[in-house]
Amino acid sequence: MTAEPEIGFEDFFEGQHIPFGSVTVDRDELLDFARRYDPQSFHVDEDAAARSIFGGIIASGWHTGAMMMRLLCDGLFLRAASMGSPGLDQLRWIRPVRPGDTLTLTGKVLSAKASRSKPDRGSVDISYKVHNQHGELAMTFQAVTMFGRRNPGETTDG
Amino acid sequence: MTAEPEIGFEDFFEGQHIPFGSVTVDRDELLDFARRYDPQSFHVDEDAAARSIFGGIIASGWHTGAMMMRLLCDGLFLRAASMGSPGLDQLRWIRPVRPGDTLTLTGKVLSAKASRSKPDRGSVDISYKVHNQHGELAMTFQAVTMFGRRNPGETTDG
Repeated sequence: MTAEPEIGFEDFFEGQHIPFGSVTVDRDELLDFARRYDPQSFHVDEDAAARSIFGGIIASGWHTGAMMMRLLCDGLFLRAASMGSPGLDQLRWIRPVRPGDTLTLTGKVLSAKASRSKPDRGSVDISYKVHNQHGELAMTFQAVTMFGRRNPGETTDG
Repeated sequence: MTAEPEIGFEDFFEGQHIPFGSVTVDRDELLDFARRYDPQSFHVDEDAAARSIFGGIIASGWHTGAMMMRLLCDGLFLRAASMGSPGLDQLRWIRPVRPGDTLTLTGKVLSAKASRSKPDRGSVDISYKVHNQHGELAMTFQAVTMFGRRNPGETTDG
């Protein structure tokens, strides 16, 4: 909180389109994550995965989410007055994510509402889409993030 | 798929209560995860976190989710014919998760439905609650998981 964040609540508006860049899924990292947090056979065992409905190793859905969180950080949150998130909704793992896939994250602001009870912040509701290198939708989710306001004294009722 | 899984779709029923055990949050692991996937200051910087609204380092919400996924694996999924999840809903990060916290996961089955189009599986919708060592609710979410059926020939219409 010492340095003034570049981006505040006031910079978001309904309908805003936000590109967050891309990440390529590293095979070793995929396996490391899965061995630690989600050691189901189709995430960690090549042979079992090949015989499964997925036809090969796929990323844990939590890993895909974590990789998207990193894109959010690098693309926006680290330059913003982010105050965390109360949660997310409608997360869908639509297509398997495989080693070597390149995932691109985009967001569309559904709403940006100044808090009535806490005048130093506002909530921004964003719908996210994750596409793979083939242009296919791999994952979607919707999340609210709290951002600090540049002018905390203002209220929405004024 | 070589060894017969211990638990199949038929073992789930509406209202079923499932305990998944506990995990204590390791400080180094919390920091490692956050540095890699969610390097917001309140997850990785002790001083900044102390000055933030959280009053100290807290776990990335994705890390808390990943830790719960591991409890799901150890407590059930690794012994079951799990076929992955189409997604989750209503994930809420209700209270901050801090180093040293012990998190306990419980689930309640909302519904268990055999697939009409794919007779080898069924979907189980489970509401999950995560409590900390003070008995406080730290996180909740709801997720559908697909499980293989022991008797794939049967249909729900019969």
